[in-house]
Amino acid sequence: MTAYRAPLDDMRFVLRELAGLDAVAALPGHEDATPDLIDAILAEAGKLATDVLAPLNPVGDRQGCVLENGVVRTPDGFSQAYGQFIEGGWNGVPFDPEYGGMGLPMLVAGATFEIWQGANMAFSICPTLTQAAVELLSTHGSDDLRAVYMEKLVSGEWAGTMNLTEPQAGSDLSKIRTRAIKVGENYRLTGQKIFITHGEQDFTGNIIHMVLARSPGGPVGVKGLSLYVVPKFLVKEDGSLGDRNDLRCLSLEHKMGLHASPTCVMSFGEAESENGGGAVGYLVGEENRGLEYMFTMMNNARLAIGIEGVGVAEHAFQHARAYAAERVQGGGATIDSHADVRRMLLSMRAQTEAIRALAYYAGAALDMARRHPDADTRAAKQALVDLLIPVVKAWGTDTAIEVANTGMQVLGGAGYIEESGAPQFFRDVRVAAIYEGTNGIQALDLVGRKVTRDHGAAADALIADMRALDGELAEHSGVDDLGVLRDALKTALDALQEATRWIVETYPENTDAVAAGAVPYLRLMATATGGWLMARSALAAHKRLKSGEDSGFLRDKMISSRFFADQILIQAPGLATTVTRGWESVLRSGAGDA
Amino acid sequence: MTAYRAPLDDMRFVLRELAGLDAVAALPGHEDATPDLIDAILAEAGKLATDVLAPLNPVGDRQGCVLENGVVRTPDGFSQAYGQFIEGGWNGVPFDPEYGGMGLPMLVAGATFEIWQGANMAFSICPTLTQAAVELLSTHGSDDLRAVYMEKLVSGEWAGTMNLTEPQAGSDLSKIRTRAIKVGENYRLTGQKIFITHGEQDFTGNIIHMVLARSPGGPVGVKGLSLYVVPKFLVKEDGSLGDRNDLRCLSLEHKMGLHASPTCVMSFGEAESENGGGAVGYLVGEENRGLEYMFTMMNNARLAIGIEGVGVAEHAFQHARAYAAERVQGGGATIDSHADVRRMLLSMRAQTEAIRALAYYAGAALDMARRHPDADTRAAKQALVDLLIPVVKAWGTDTAIEVANTGMQVLGGAGYIEESGAPQFFRDVRVAAIYEGTNGIQALDLVGRKVTRDHGAAADALIADMRALDGELAEHSGVDDLGVLRDALKTALDALQEATRWIVETYPENTDAVAAGAVPYLRLMATATGGWLMARSALAAHKRLKSGEDSGFLRDKMISSRFFADQILIQAPGLATTVTRGWESVLRSGAGDA
Repeated sequence: MTAYRAPLDDMRFVLRELAGLDAVAALPGHEDATPDLIDAILAEAGKLATDVLAPLNPVGDRQGCVLENGVVRTPDGFSQAYGQFIEGGWNGVPFDPEYGGMGLPMLVAGATFEIWQGANMAFSICPTLTQAAVELLSTHGSDDLRAVYMEKLVSGEWAGTMNLTEPQAGSDLSKIRTRAIKVGENYRLTGQKIFITHGEQDFTGNIIHMVLARSPGGPVGVKGLSLYVVPKFLVKEDGSLGDRNDLRCLSLEHKMGLHASPTCVMSFGEAESENGGGAVGYLVGEENRGLEYMFTMMNNARLAIGIEGVGVAEHAFQHARAYAAERVQGGGATIDSHADVRRMLLSMRAQTEAIRALAYYAGAALDMARRHPDADTRAAKQALVDLLIPVVKAWGTDTAIEVANTGMQVLGGAGYIEESGAPQFFRDVRVAAIYEGTNGIQALDLVGRKVTRDHGAAADALIADMRALDGELAEHSGVDDLGVLRDALKTALDALQEATRWIVETYPENTDAVAAGAVPYLRLMATATGGWLMARSALAAHKRLKSGEDSGFLRDKMISSRFFADQILIQAPGLATTVTRGWESVLRSGAGDA
Repeated sequence: MTAYRAPLDDMRFVLRELAGLDAVAALPGHEDATPDLIDAILAEAGKLATDVLAPLNPVGDRQGCVLENGVVRTPDGFSQAYGQFIEGGWNGVPFDPEYGGMGLPMLVAGATFEIWQGANMAFSICPTLTQAAVELLSTHGSDDLRAVYMEKLVSGEWAGTMNLTEPQAGSDLSKIRTRAIKVGENYRLTGQKIFITHGEQDFTGNIIHMVLARSPGGPVGVKGLSLYVVPKFLVKEDGSLGDRNDLRCLSLEHKMGLHASPTCVMSFGEAESENGGGAVGYLVGEENRGLEYMFTMMNNARLAIGIEGVGVAEHAFQHARAYAAERVQGGGATIDSHADVRRMLLSMRAQTEAIRALAYYAGAALDMARRHPDADTRAAKQALVDLLIPVVKAWGTDTAIEVANTGMQVLGGAGYIEESGAPQFFRDVRVAAIYEGTNGIQALDLVGRKVTRDHGAAADALIADMRALDGELAEHSGVDDLGVLRDALKTALDALQEATRWIVETYPENTDAVAAGAVPYLRLMATATGGWLMARSALAAHKRLKSGEDSGFLRDKMISSRFFADQILIQAPGLATTVTRGWESVLRSGAGDA
């Protein structure tokens, strides 16, 4: 069984041929992101992943985390690995050099994320959350807050967490009860939060909790929520650690997977009744705008979760491929010579390549939306990002779950045995369809906001962009693969167009019908967009092969693109019918009377 | 959270409206199987399931099995529950009254199986394996063997196991190394077997292992395999237990799920080197025909696994529905009022109903094939059973896995926490796509034997039978649901016909292409056949509603059938294209060079 290796060839291919790395590197502030530098960075990241993080992945699954006397002990080797991780400067890849970051594009940071997540998802969640905290503070934090926290969060010396969910407030944050009262210049917070990833750990000397809580005297519902920085240890004026804040981890969840990532029930301000206390918190930005602030980092966070899917799918694929190349059954041949095993492996590869392509494409659009010198371009790219992010998050994770599931099947009986490693990929990545907004919530976001708020303009723009490929594909339609891709893409785009029009027209009069079709619509958009990117992949590979480049990688890319057309893109018309007609039975179905 | 309840309404509906219980009960030997008796039996089984087996399901998952000094300890309450189970006579439902069985049709036994599996899959595997042993002995065992073992296996006082797999021999049994030598009238066996479900347990006083081993001087490959009865305790002439046989459980597998079912590595004849010993075994039937015998019980066993899928899917559905009916999010309403949650619940229900319909339909055909007085009918039904069994096994289990996965999603964050119970359904049923022939093997069996050996005759007969429904649907096509079902079914049957023709024509010249399309072809046949049965369901429900019957169940059946048409049957044309064209990229894909 070979270890995880960062898929550098495909990453480079996607970065350059599909995501437009050159254009991103030409953006103001990213001039240093030369191809050579980025190659070197990804190769170095790959080494750390292969040598340090991936070997810890099964260890973490077996050992899990332990809570004793309020202290969380992560599995053997994890905190040391974290030390190596931050020592290498990896925590700061996308961040402002002013605070010690590398200042690289999100696109490149996303590629490093894929490597960490692929090697060890449970480990990599910690820096993902820190990134979200940095994002929030750099966009909305006061100069004072930034001065105290930014540098250490960027370096990773301290870690960040997100505290949103409460027992009665999951997908619906309007029910949050944790409250802040003003005491002097700052706030005191009281309440309980659940599902707090890395709420307590032994990686870092301090943990900076970003807590959504009800502001004093604010309106009911989500409009009365503010965002507070609540550090585990208060920070003295000289930057050193002071008193322990009144917050603690009450218990750890017993999860299906991701055992090495502590999921905490957190309690803030337990001592309140005795001294009127509460955990000391510092307001981020203005009161009552907490949820709005959360939304500003949501695109990033959801992109990161989609990339998590890419990473785990890649690792599950490599794992299954290695097993199939060694396991002998049937006439003395290894099982990867059997047609059905090849089908399974190719489905894993093609799907992983497609979600990588889409995630990186969205990542590049994010960079463009932030830094392009032209305001119209920025606005158009922002609209594209807003549209694509729920698709990246939901499709990336759903696909990773399917890929991991197929991986178990490739291994046969061994795939059901924990020691083989195959079940862990599934058990770990399964959560990614749930957290950071369930995939159902992503689909509702897509249809209820992203597609309908501009009456389909952003979706139409994307579809028009995708249709523009037809001309180029037509020039090569004598090439069998490209001809098949062209036809399948055209059919899929027609289906997407039809379903989009239906969504836009139906939404005002029958919101529930659109909601009932949201998940199949997201799948349709993902399938079509993924198909477009795979068609672009095949076209690029074909041109390079034709120009004389002799590469197994490029031939494989033709094959996986063709597979995608015949086995996945082909489902688009059916999905469109499901969107436009499938809601009928759903809305007739009783609530629980079945 | 409500407990599991046997879905008696739908079981009765499927038994009568789809599977033809009346015709089965009219078969020679089944005259006692009156509707009232069967209703009473299913209701009683439901009670035991709800009161005893289902409450133990999470206990078993948490505690698992322990091996100490060669003895396996199952979780608290399991062996007592087994006592209640056999005391009620439940082990003998389908067996010959001559040996103490109830002599009921397989169709009815299948329905009770669904109840046991639904309540507690890990528990129910034990009787499933005993059934296979009874099947083998009653068909191929000598009178002597039957005299010694049958009655106690039928009652469940002793349990049976299947010993096929070895480390180097999984899907490919030709590599089996366990060998038998003849000593006197009997045999001595030496070797190691893996993945032996309930190879050791504390349910029964004796365990009767059915062991596939190499016969003395037999040919290489599968043609040199014979089947032996190898009891844990030798049985004395008076029927009492004698010496401990030379076999033992070396270790238990650490599985993803099904923790309460001990999966053993078994060693036979370890003492050999010292005394030339080996475990005492008794030949079943003739030498070198072991695999052939195994095939005779395979239809039963694979039907049972498909039904396992139905049972777990039903339980996962009930579990998610109960959660959604209690969980409040968003405006004070329970989440089952949200369109996307309703979509998920309805997809779980519709898919579960469809796999139940198909499994019971196949079960009835099995009874017909065995007992129908007309030889031509028996032959036709046997061909139908042979065709459908791989579909029932693979589609039933794949669908159950998908349903259990959706169940976790319905629960949101709680769905990832083990205490919620949702992950267990997935983790348990996941194995069902792997054991008793992986679902890939099922698909290869379907295309490589069942469809092609008679040049598509059995498949064509089924398709013709399904097409015959069109006339009746046409009479009611003014009813919206039935019109939609009619169109979708027609399209799906055209697709199935086209793909079947392609399979039959391509197989002789390009076996690998057919193998690469086997899994999508099985899915296509399942989708079309499931759609046909759902259309029949809707038709029956419509007629009964029209005749004045006022029933929420019948209205729900119209809804789930319609959902199936719009959301699942709709995929048939795409699947046909995948079959006929999708193999191309698969066969070009390198073996592991990606």
